Amino acid sequence: MNFCSHCGSPALELRIPDGDTLPRQVCSACGTVHYQNPKVVVGCLPVWNDQVLLCKRAIEPRRGLWTLPAGFLENGETILAGAERETAEEAGTWVVLGPLYTVISLPHINQIYVMFRARLVDLDFGPGEESLEVRLFDESDIPWSDLAFRTITRTLRNYFLDRKLGEFPVHVSALDRRAPLKPELLGAG
Amino acid sequence: MNFCSHCGSPALELRIPDGDTLPRQVCSACGTVHYQNPKVVVGCLPVWNDQVLLCKRAIEPRRGLWTLPAGFLENGETILAGAERETAEEAGTWVVLGPLYTVISLPHINQIYVMFRARLVDLDFGPGEESLEVRLFDESDIPWSDLAFRTITRTLRNYFLDRKLGEFPVHVSALDRRAPLKPELLGAG
Repeated sequence: MNFCSHCGSPALELRIPDGDTLPRQVCSACGTVHYQNPKVVVGCLPVWNDQVLLCKRAIEPRRGLWTLPAGFLENGETILAGAERETAEEAGTWVVLGPLYTVISLPHINQIYVMFRARLVDLDFGPGEESLEVRLFDESDIPWSDLAFRTITRTLRNYFLDRKLGEFPVHVSALDRRAPLKPELLGAG
Repeated sequence: MNFCSHCGSPALELRIPDGDTLPRQVCSACGTVHYQNPKVVVGCLPVWNDQVLLCKRAIEPRRGLWTLPAGFLENGETILAGAERETAEEAGTWVVLGPLYTVISLPHINQIYVMFRARLVDLDFGPGEESLEVRLFDESDIPWSDLAFRTITRTLRNYFLDRKLGEFPVHVSALDRRAPLKPELLGAG
């Protein structure tokens, strides 16, 4: 942000507005306070019998890696509608959404992931513009080292564990900045 | 939004960017696409024995009406940290957060409410700058007609019903634009 989107002035300053507690971009010319807030990513874990549907990403970031269908919630949308839309866009299919499943805060990139369990109604799916490939995986074939995001890894790990336990509670958690590899570990072995 | 926050140009146009599906504010001068997304409101339902803590709002909107402590999630914050912070700011107390409880989409105002159950640890609470009064209510004393937001009414109704049933599942729902009163009802009786 270089200019005030309200009046066009470049006189922005980072300061705590009166009555507020955090620094914001405030326009010195017109007084507008520009708030910035986390974004919500909505998606689902579509299941067919014992298999899970994954999409190979056609776009950056993480092009070529596998993900569950998910994307930014849009204005005017409920979280259920957003999860359905993203699944249609990325996997070319409409799903029956089930219960809320994982809610993961990513404070270092200002995102909240909200993932539902879901059921495929048929095998009529295929890559949309944002996917290179869409296919079903058995648990034993999940490409764990080629998953696009840690939120996806966590949601899938929760799922396969919960499936063994026979219960699917809502999992609320957070992921922080990825810890850098320690130099002594990089050199090991 | 009247000016591009990146380059300061007033040449904004509402159009669907290449590869996108929805209209966005796009700067014709520098090409920046200005996305706008829903905001997350986080809060909790603090309980002390059989009583529930409510705050009387000192600020607009809905000044003078009662609410559960809740407010906008900030960048860099997890949903749990946000709910704790809002409770400290509005009710002057730190709570022990419990399980996720209600998730309510408000597509007409681009908000997602995320509310947790919570336990007060003592009776050391009181109004912060955004509250006129903070007090505990028995179910029979809840000021149902003086609650600030429908999300609060829904969360409290869920809670008192679930308490009778002895189970507190996560409730995912949506509230749409408030239906206008029908003229025939306005004139009735």
